[in-house]
Amino acid sequence: MQIAIVLYPGMTALDAVGPYEVLRLLPDAEVRFVGAAPGPVVTDSGVLFLGVTHSYPETPNPDIVLVPGSGPRTATEMADQQLTDWLRRVHETTRWTTSVCTGSMILAAAGLLDGLPATTHWAVQPGLAAMGAKPQRAQRIVRAGKIVTAAGVAAGIDLGLWLVGEIAGRQHAEMVQLFIEYDPQPPYDAGHPSKASKTVIDHAKTLLRRQAFNPSELRAIPTIAWQRALKKFRTRKGLA
Amino acid sequence: MQIAIVLYPGMTALDAVGPYEVLRLLPDAEVRFVGAAPGPVVTDSGVLFLGVTHSYPETPNPDIVLVPGSGPRTATEMADQQLTDWLRRVHETTRWTTSVCTGSMILAAAGLLDGLPATTHWAVQPGLAAMGAKPQRAQRIVRAGKIVTAAGVAAGIDLGLWLVGEIAGRQHAEMVQLFIEYDPQPPYDAGHPSKASKTVIDHAKTLLRRQAFNPSELRAIPTIAWQRALKKFRTRKGLA
Repeated sequence: MQIAIVLYPGMTALDAVGPYEVLRLLPDAEVRFVGAAPGPVVTDSGVLFLGVTHSYPETPNPDIVLVPGSGPRTATEMADQQLTDWLRRVHETTRWTTSVCTGSMILAAAGLLDGLPATTHWAVQPGLAAMGAKPQRAQRIVRAGKIVTAAGVAAGIDLGLWLVGEIAGRQHAEMVQLFIEYDPQPPYDAGHPSKASKTVIDHAKTLLRRQAFNPSELRAIPTIAWQRALKKFRTRKGLA
Repeated sequence: MQIAIVLYPGMTALDAVGPYEVLRLLPDAEVRFVGAAPGPVVTDSGVLFLGVTHSYPETPNPDIVLVPGSGPRTATEMADQQLTDWLRRVHETTRWTTSVCTGSMILAAAGLLDGLPATTHWAVQPGLAAMGAKPQRAQRIVRAGKIVTAAGVAAGIDLGLWLVGEIAGRQHAEMVQLFIEYDPQPPYDAGHPSKASKTVIDHAKTLLRRQAFNPSELRAIPTIAWQRALKKFRTRKGLA
């Protein structure tokens, strides 16, 4: 069971590392980290480096693909034709094609979510609709055939566990849950806009806009690239 | 607010990346990844590489220290005098000294948990008692003054969120929780031995013993190093 987790500069680390820690405990799991070229990529914090082990061409037939999201760089990746071409190609033979957070925007940019129910980070749901998918904002994990999309960042752990259950059965999934002691007890209950106060939601939106924790030189690029990718995609779909 | 997250070969990635994704959203956070030398370390899966950004000597005064755990390599790190010396030294001036999973065994090896309530992965609680701490197996996060230890792997996210609340207040913590959409909805409920069936617990213990997903050449080392570290520690404490 080959599991290809995509890594790219500016991605959100937990989107990938959460499901990785679960999926690697599948029976006969062969996990690999796939990207433009083997070597380090820096995540959205600018300080955490993760390592790509295999290039896209070295990974023609993964059983599972997982695409993580990003605050500032989703649009750049949506416009990365090497990635979107690879996703379209491997999707033909995957058992599961999956995403966490804004990773679903990249699946959408590859044309894989047209007219399908899907989800993403709560703040990006309108973007997903603009890309031609049908956002399901109340669901943490959305399945459409063999495509499974998860909500923001931490939802990737739930996605991973759900997948293990589908592939290896309930007992194995429970073993994995126990192994990583995934018995969540958050000290607050504000993890979804339906549960958070207006002040907290506004605060989060401001931080999302500012992306103050990202290297300043990256700040201007995403908006432009996002617009460009969106325009290109919509033109291709006859929507623009 | 300097946050030093320790990385070492054979560690469990989510132990570090879970709390990292939370703590980096503290106001004025300066996160760094600290280890023996800057560069990649390979985690317990043998396939995921994380990058050390700063050496121990380059990090003499962190405000927060976080030590992740490991399946096979905890004992090796317990015996790593460069790490334990550094932990003892920086602990004198930290605001918070913290651990996830078997990271508490490393804090214990540094002599920081003597007689204190603490926790670790459910399967390692007896080891923590042998090291002189007082295991609190029913608690997911255990505070003893400025030392805070968390249970296994996924508990690091709860630890991070709790810390953000202590440092920056409830509203900021809720914002962080919403930002990373930490609204856990695991499809199973077996994340703690008190909730899992005997079959599932036995299955997890077998996997923990086999560590089948680790490079085979590492398997023999930890047991010896673990015994050596334990003996050394107990001799130092007049227990052996």
